[in-house]
Amino acid sequence: MNFEDLAKTSGEWLRGSGPESDIVISSRIRLARNLADFPFIARATDSDKAEIESILRGRVEALRESGKLGGSPSYLDVSQLDDVDRQFLVERQLISREHAESEGARAVVIDQGEQFSVMINEEDHLRIQVMYSGLDLNVAWKQINALDDLIEEKITFAYNDRLGYLTACPTNVGTGVRISVMLHLPALVITRQIEKVFRSLQKINLAVRGLYGEGSQATGDFYQISNQITLGKSEEEVTKDVSDVIPVLIDYERQARDFLIRESQETLHDRISRAFGILQSAKTISSEETMHLLSSVRMGVNLGLIENVQIPTVNMLFIHTQPAHLQKLTGMELDPSDRNIERASYLRRHLAGDPPAVDQN
Amino acid sequence: MNFEDLAKTSGEWLRGSGPESDIVISSRIRLARNLADFPFIARATDSDKAEIESILRGRVEALRESGKLGGSPSYLDVSQLDDVDRQFLVERQLISREHAESEGARAVVIDQGEQFSVMINEEDHLRIQVMYSGLDLNVAWKQINALDDLIEEKITFAYNDRLGYLTACPTNVGTGVRISVMLHLPALVITRQIEKVFRSLQKINLAVRGLYGEGSQATGDFYQISNQITLGKSEEEVTKDVSDVIPVLIDYERQARDFLIRESQETLHDRISRAFGILQSAKTISSEETMHLLSSVRMGVNLGLIENVQIPTVNMLFIHTQPAHLQKLTGMELDPSDRNIERASYLRRHLAGDPPAVDQN
Repeated sequence: MNFEDLAKTSGEWLRGSGPESDIVISSRIRLARNLADFPFIARATDSDKAEIESILRGRVEALRESGKLGGSPSYLDVSQLDDVDRQFLVERQLISREHAESEGARAVVIDQGEQFSVMINEEDHLRIQVMYSGLDLNVAWKQINALDDLIEEKITFAYNDRLGYLTACPTNVGTGVRISVMLHLPALVITRQIEKVFRSLQKINLAVRGLYGEGSQATGDFYQISNQITLGKSEEEVTKDVSDVIPVLIDYERQARDFLIRESQETLHDRISRAFGILQSAKTISSEETMHLLSSVRMGVNLGLIENVQIPTVNMLFIHTQPAHLQKLTGMELDPSDRNIERASYLRRHLAGDPPAVDQN
Repeated sequence: MNFEDLAKTSGEWLRGSGPESDIVISSRIRLARNLADFPFIARATDSDKAEIESILRGRVEALRESGKLGGSPSYLDVSQLDDVDRQFLVERQLISREHAESEGARAVVIDQGEQFSVMINEEDHLRIQVMYSGLDLNVAWKQINALDDLIEEKITFAYNDRLGYLTACPTNVGTGVRISVMLHLPALVITRQIEKVFRSLQKINLAVRGLYGEGSQATGDFYQISNQITLGKSEEEVTKDVSDVIPVLIDYERQARDFLIRESQETLHDRISRAFGILQSAKTISSEETMHLLSSVRMGVNLGLIENVQIPTVNMLFIHTQPAHLQKLTGMELDPSDRNIERASYLRRHLAGDPPAVDQN
């Protein structure tokens, strides 16, 4: 797996295709699993972790060699990666920030299309993730279910007949499943309806998080909606809980966009056009401001208020302007201040009036 | 005097030429005079005002017909002008806001080049003004002195041997002269030195005002430096007081610009480039924000940080985006909200990557 080549693409989660992709960025499912014969990570010794890693690596290698895994996956020893490479995988939503920052033997398996990734020795021994661009939970569910079954053929997971799968954190006990849908909701933010929507979601036990998981701020108006309950409901029921609410949120966002177009088109157009203008002209810009402005531009393109730029370009810029991507793309290690200058330069080149050919996957 | 044609130009005060014109916008001198045989305006009856207006109009007509006045001046009955036309003259610095908004018989005489204007029945019966682009107080002084002498040949001004010229407000008694130099001081504002500079000026009895005179805010980083003392000093001494301090202020501003270039060129360039980007992309913009952003662009052009736009264009935009000018230029009466849209459109047209031919005087 060549990170430099990978950096030129947007990854699966920002591919910008799939159903409802003007609002739904990606659909993601992850399963938490632990080996029955070892303690949870918090109580595992270094040699436990090394053994867990070795067993799971063996299982993945066997599946890969048998061709059952598909997608030509790469096995990456996360403990051997440098900081920028680990940060790079976080930015692509392939490993968690916790996995990047922890210590000891740990790894991740990633397929070429970045649709699945398997973290070894994260909070649980095994975290399987499947991600699709747009709204596609059913396809994601089928794939992750098959992956889980394949691994479990030769591995005994910690399982209790009454509780289900046992996990390091009680919030994952049972199915160990988290269904997440990432949405782009700029109009609900502008019309100040987003807090109300979130309170409603919490009442039906759905959590709302920002772009990079727990505790992260909703930069770029990206919000992940996910289940909080893993106990007492089947995976299909949880998938349905999340699936049922997404069309309602999409509808709210569409209504908010219609409202803005109808009631304050000039203000909206101004906001979007200025965001585009600043991205085209800044000489230094933070990642946070970039996400904020790109969010307006993305909505503007979807509403037909900006021409000369395409959604795949905007999606690509969301990820290419992240710190590690920027360093991979320029081939330089850059401190934050130099990154801000390089980011601005990268944006100007890709958003110029006459845009250059853009690498897209 | 055709306001529609006039609107297409920048006027004298923003012509952008003359000595030190990167920092010194204009040099202006005005004299306050009153007819000896009539009460001051505050105590004058309507018929007094009508008579004063008639006498001074007669004097101006006689001078114009004799060819002594020069500059093909127009005589405008301000009481007969509509609101937009009066506002237009205020924006061009040809009449004061007070003159525009007062009641009763009043007028202004303006030469074609807009280098002199004579207000009749403003705070005083007569206010003579001469204005030059750039730093040119000596030329302005010679011209206004000649004008004053010409008018006085056949008019008796209120004069006291001990005090000098008598004026409606005691602050003008004596010479009745106000010397004003308008400076563009964005770097002193950015480096937060401007307040300190102003406190120093106050100690030597110089006043600092914003763009449109007393009480007006310093929009666009334009500041008028003028004398406060009219009693006990000759006109030449007052001119020298102001003249002596201007090179010091120019030097401060140049040092502040050098400092910004040296210590934070990226931040400065970013600020300037973003200002230009917003002016090129906004769909609605207030007059105040326009001035603020144009100020950065003006400094950017002077520092060579922006190409493809010339100082006369920037100066022209400062005045053309004012409310009355915008309405004259579009030939439409516009409410503030429509003006903001029209202003943004005007700016985009004149600051596009490939700028159209620009009317300049």
